[in-house]
Parts: sequence; structure tokens; C-alpha cells
Amino acid sequence: MKSEIIAIGSEMLTPFRQDTNSLYLTEKLNELGVTVAFKTIVGDRRKDLVNAIGTALGRADIVILVGGLGPTEDDLTREAVAETLSLTLHRNATQVAALAARAATWRIPMPENNLKQANILEGAILLPNLNGSAPGQWLDTTWESYRKLLVLVPGPPHECRALFDAECIPRLREVLPARHIAKRTLRAAMIPESHADKLLAPIYTKYKDVETTILAHTGDIQLTLLCAKSNAAAAQARVDELAGRMEEALEDWLYSSSNESSESLEQIVLYYLGLRESTLAVAESCTGGLISQRITSVPGSSRSFLGGAIVYSDELKTSFAGVPPELIAEYGAVSREVAEALAYGIRRHTGATLGLGVTGIAGPTGGTEAKPVGLVYIALSDDEKTESIERNFRGDRDRIRQWAAQQALDLVRRRLR
Amino acid sequence: MKSEIIAIGSEMLTPFRQDTNSLYLTEKLNELGVTVAFKTIVGDRRKDLVNAIGTALGRADIVILVGGLGPTEDDLTREAVAETLSLTLHRNATQVAALAARAATWRIPMPENNLKQANILEGAILLPNLNGSAPGQWLDTTWESYRKLLVLVPGPPHECRALFDAECIPRLREVLPARHIAKRTLRAAMIPESHADKLLAPIYTKYKDVETTILAHTGDIQLTLLCAKSNAAAAQARVDELAGRMEEALEDWLYSSSNESSESLEQIVLYYLGLRESTLAVAESCTGGLISQRITSVPGSSRSFLGGAIVYSDELKTSFAGVPPELIAEYGAVSREVAEALAYGIRRHTGATLGLGVTGIAGPTGGTEAKPVGLVYIALSDDEKTESIERNFRGDRDRIRQWAAQQALDLVRRRLR
Repeated sequence: MKSEIIAIGSEMLTPFRQDTNSLYLTEKLNELGVTVAFKTIVGDRRKDLVNAIGTALGRADIVILVGGLGPTEDDLTREAVAETLSLTLHRNATQVAALAARAATWRIPMPENNLKQANILEGAILLPNLNGSAPGQWLDTTWESYRKLLVLVPGPPHECRALFDAECIPRLREVLPARHIAKRTLRAAMIPESHADKLLAPIYTKYKDVETTILAHTGDIQLTLLCAKSNAAAAQARVDELAGRMEEALEDWLYSSSNESSESLEQIVLYYLGLRESTLAVAESCTGGLISQRITSVPGSSRSFLGGAIVYSDELKTSFAGVPPELIAEYGAVSREVAEALAYGIRRHTGATLGLGVTGIAGPTGGTEAKPVGLVYIALSDDEKTESIERNFRGDRDRIRQWAAQQALDLVRRRLR
Repeated sequence: MKSEIIAIGSEMLTPFRQDTNSLYLTEKLNELGVTVAFKTIVGDRRKDLVNAIGTALGRADIVILVGGLGPTEDDLTREAVAETLSLTLHRNATQVAALAARAATWRIPMPENNLKQANILEGAILLPNLNGSAPGQWLDTTWESYRKLLVLVPGPPHECRALFDAECIPRLREVLPARHIAKRTLRAAMIPESHADKLLAPIYTKYKDVETTILAHTGDIQLTLLCAKSNAAAAQARVDELAGRMEEALEDWLYSSSNESSESLEQIVLYYLGLRESTLAVAESCTGGLISQRITSVPGSSRSFLGGAIVYSDELKTSFAGVPPELIAEYGAVSREVAEALAYGIRRHTGATLGLGVTGIAGPTGGTEAKPVGLVYIALSDDEKTESIERNFRGDRDRIRQWAAQQALDLVRRRLR
């Protein structure tokens, strides 16, 4: 089954805003065995909308229209579908009552144009929207004598998702051939992309019935394996077999393998910290808070993460992490020695089980021939030893900082594993 | 002039990856007075590509095709355009030589399929790609007896942008009616969205010849004003007049008004710190490094930002920022008193001119009736006084942290202004 998602709204044709609903909808459609063959973004002009809807009906079996269901003059999705398919719109009494009740709850008089949202396409089913005023619509129709499903869902992301999950997925399941989807997500840190491809391509290309998607992003690789079969156990067996072979190939680059949603590196680090009853503190120079920010983005991180210091100035390297000024004078603030002193010092200062220290040159200026932009030292200290690594990252300031944070978290993971 | 951007690549039809080139291209096209009426995302299937290209030629004057120009079997843009327009492809000798020279530089034998990239559409002009092997193509053609411009650009973002800037913009300028675009970007912090709309809509709706775009994001509003006229001074005068009225309406919520690219709140804070020869240090609890990370993302921030402490545990609030344990015991870690002690203490501990302290409940757990999730105290201290504010932010953990960081940076801006 081929589908097309049409995102409706002029703001998504500006340089400033993107359609994001389609990513969620694509995931859900893929899990039902539906391919997304086209995505179209169109503004709030009726003529353009009619063109986009007609085009989609001509090339896809399922067309999902997102947005343009609200009460304003710009909300024209219902009208455009009616025009494209030569259908009438009629006002639904139940929906009028629902809109009136909603307005009463908010203690506001109901504006006349609100009633637009009670207009329903001839032959369509209204899909209740628990998070907003505009209901969705489900239309089982024909176009050039082919059966087509046309689904109208609201644009605000939380309304779109909740309504699609509650109203559209069960209806799609009834219509689509029964399939069971098995899924697995693997994640690996700091493996060079080309190396991952060399290791993995010979494996996954042999599994034609498993769809493997690879997403790489500054030192993080996410592999999503999807297999659809009429037999659930058979689908699961294929995914598990492929996942097993990939896990082996990825060796200790692999940090997570999950049937549920994907786990981040910071989640894994916190998981290990909890398991070992360990605590972590960090002293960040060039990453400037990025590592702390990633760790503290995880709910409950306060159980294992004590905190740390952003030691941008040399003085703070000394006062917060006890780095001797002579060490900075002798080796420079960006040096293996200072990274190790930061890791050791922050651990001692905070009483954490593990201390992490990062110092480097994020650029764009400040590099020298001996110490170029991208040079980063990362050190990890526990009560037995303090170890450090040297890396040369490429890219702009933002990317160098991201690489350094990723490498630092991976160093902690490897120590705790 | 109406345009359509077609982003080509099956990876952009997965749940994991989005087209981002079109945002850049839209900005550049708008500056030339070209509207983007449709965006289409299509995979690497020739049949779907032919469909998408034909559809676009039927509804837009300028069609930009992004991607699918590489050497692999999946790269089918050239072939699909040839099929759609019934054009032949012929091999360009100059481009063959360029590809051979490129392979020689990399000291690798040139694979046969590389030569695909030297195939040029009948009647097209090759557009040199200085950052990659696949050149772009410029085709001035007709479709159903209308003149159409078809532009093929490579998909990797840095290749796409550089080639579009160098090769496409000058050619589009020649083709399009001469227009001068005046632009202004205003930014405001922490103004409620509905209030901004109420203040600004009555103003900008009167300027029909200026296109105003409003982008709002967790306490930050960006207004982009664009005006295109044949006379440059007239366009500038209109934009300046509207900007002036908006600046007045936004009062001290406004933090930046620029003809150049937009300035972030952290850039403005650093600008003021430099101007006042002041330095800043922060003690972050619930924001966990987010404020430091935003400040240090700006190149050169080390001149005014000394660093700070992530004081997640109560012990670190005491040892890094000198918060008396009795104060925490009496008022709780999330309290106005502790926020002020953090701000005061981090300033004294680091010797900074300004100390910023943040403590709050980011959730999802940890809230009580008296101190619910979203409650945040932010304090700012200089050698004259320590002030604090209390806020109740809504949303999930991520949004509460973002709101708190934005509010904290705005507090610093207002003190320094």
C-alpha cells in the first residue's frame, strides 16, 4: 500500500518552519506496512490545495491530510476535498453541540466561524479530537474508479498524534491485510560511519525481508530493523536473528539494543551508574555545559549525577576542580595533564565515584599549529586510576562540542560496562 | 513567480530524516521575490520521480530538484527529467575530464559508474560543484507551451547551498524582474505570544507590501520583515517604518533589531557583558548546564563568561556556591532564598561581576502541591544587590528547562541593558 502525506499550512513554506508531523505519521504507517511514497507541503490557498489533493489521489492509495481544519478563513482543507471530489459539505448537529459545550467550558461565547469545524464531507466519518476543537474525518471513497482512503487530521502535533493513534490506526488495521511487525533498535557510539557500513552492509543486505534504516549523527549510529509478516513469531525471529548478527559485528561500540523506543547514550550511562551505585561529576571546559545538559535532560538523573563545574576560565579550573596553576602554566589549559587534573579534582571536590574532565579548542579561533581547533582531551577518574584520551575532531564549533560530549559520555559508558 | 522545491531521496521518507535544504533555498528564493508554492519529497524510484517532476512543471514556473545527482544506481534525477521532458542525455567531455582529475587527486581509480555524473540533459547548462563530484544543471525549457526553469542541484547541504549561491542566484536575477529586497529581523524575549499578537497584528496588517513572518519558540519571538520593490530606498523605508513601529510596541521585550542575520539572546547578553566590561558566572540546578551551554555556544564567549557550577546535589550547592546548609534545610532546595544564595555565592566564589542562580522543579516527578512541577526561582546578583523572580512554567521537562534558561538569560539582559 502506498500513501502520501500532505502537510497543509503556508507557514511551512517559509524559511522558518518545517512539517514535523509527517515523521511521526510515517513511523506509524510503516508499522502498519504502509509505505510513504510522497510527502507534499502546500499553503493555505484553495486552488493549490485542490491541485495537491488531486495529485495525491492519482498516485497513492491512502492520503493523509494534516492541518487546515481550524475555524479561520485560512482553514480550507474540508472545502478543498469537497471541491476535488465533487462532494457536498453538511453541518453535523452532534458536532455543533460539542463545539457549543466546549465554548461553554471556556466561558466564552462561540464565534460564528467556529461552526465551520462542524462541517462534514458527504460519506465521511467524524473522528473525535480530544485535545482540540477541530475533529478529524475519515473518507472511504473512489478516484478514477480506484478505492482510496482519505484521512483528515488536525495540524497541532499533540492533536495530530493523539487522534491518529486513537482513531486512524484501528481503522487502518481493519482495512489493511493483517500483518505483524517486529522491530528492534540498535545504537552504537563513536564507530566511524564508513567502518559501520563496511561491517554491517554485508549482513543486513542479506535480509531482504527486514527493512534496515541507518541514522548517523556526530558519533552516534541508530539502526532500526523492521520486519512485517503474517506470523508474529516469524517476524520476530527474523529481526532477532539479524539483530544478533549486527550486535556481534558492532562489538563494544554497541550501547543499546531494544524492542522498545530507542535509548540515548546518556540514558545508558545513567542506567549503569544506577546499577553500580556510582555517582558522576563533571568538569567541562570546551563543552561548556553540554555534557551536564544531556545527562540532566533525563528524568531522575539527580539520583546518580551530582553536578559539576563549567571551568571556562583558568581560575575556575583551579578553584572548582583544584587544577594546580603551575600545571596550566606548564602544559597549557588544553592538555592531557589538565584534563586529568580536572577529572581527578572534580571527583575529589564533589565526592563522586567518577570524575569526568574535558578540555579542548572548539574554535573557530584559538587554534595553533601544535594545538589546532578540534583538539580535545577527555579524562576519567575513579579511586583506582585516572585515564585520558586525545582526539582531533573536525567541523565547526557546534560539531566539535557535540563530538566531544558524545566521546566523553562514551568513555564513561565503557568504564562502567 | 511560483516555484516548487522537490527533495529527492528515500531516506527523507523514513521517520528519521527530514529535508532541510528547502529552508535555505526558500529563504534565497523569497529574497529574489519568488514564492515557494509547493514542496514535494519523493524517493529514489524513477516512476515516482517522473510523476513528481511532471506535477511540478504543471503548477510552478521554477522547479528546483535537490538530490539524486550522485554516481549510484539510486541517483536517478537526470534520467527522470529526461524521461519527463523527452530529452536525451549526452556525456559531457569536459565533465568527464573533471571527474578523472578529481579521482586522480584522491589517488583512486575512477569507477565506471562515476561517469553518470557527466551526463547532461539536452539544452542544459552544467553548473560546477566546487564541493563535490556531481555538477548541477540549469534547464530553460517549456512545458505545455509555458516557459519553465528546471534547476538540478546536489543534495549534500554544503554542496547544495554553495552551488545555489554561486550558480543559480545570479542566473535567476537575470531572468527575474529587477527587485530590491529590504529585510529586518526583530527579536523579543519572554513576551506572551497572545500579547505579542495583540500588540503587533494591528500594526503589520496595515503594511500589505511588507511580508511579516512570526516565529515563536519557548519565550522567544522572531519577526522577519521583507519588502520587495523596484526601488531599493523605497523598500528600505517601508521596512524601517514598520520595524520602528513594532520596536516601539515591543518596548523592552525587544532585544535585537538587525538588518543582518538574526541575533540570539545569548549573543546579546555577551554583547552587553563586553560593553560593560562585566563578567558572568552561573550556578544552575534544574537547567543542568543549559544556560552555560547556550552562552558557550557563541564563539569568543570566554572573554565574558567565566563558567559556573551545575549544582544538582544539595552538597554541591554548598561547596560550589556557598549556600548555607541551614538555608536549604529551612526553605528547601527549590526556593527564592536558595536561588539568591546561589547567585550571590557563585559571584563571590568566581569573582564575576554578575552571578546568576537557578533552581526549580523540571519534573516529571518531584512536584508537591506547594511546589509544583514547573516552579522555578531565578536570581541575579551584582555588588549592589541580589534580585530574584519566581515563575511557573508549563510543559514537559524539556520545555520547563528551556523556559527557565530563556528567562534567566533575559534577566541578565535586562540588568545590563
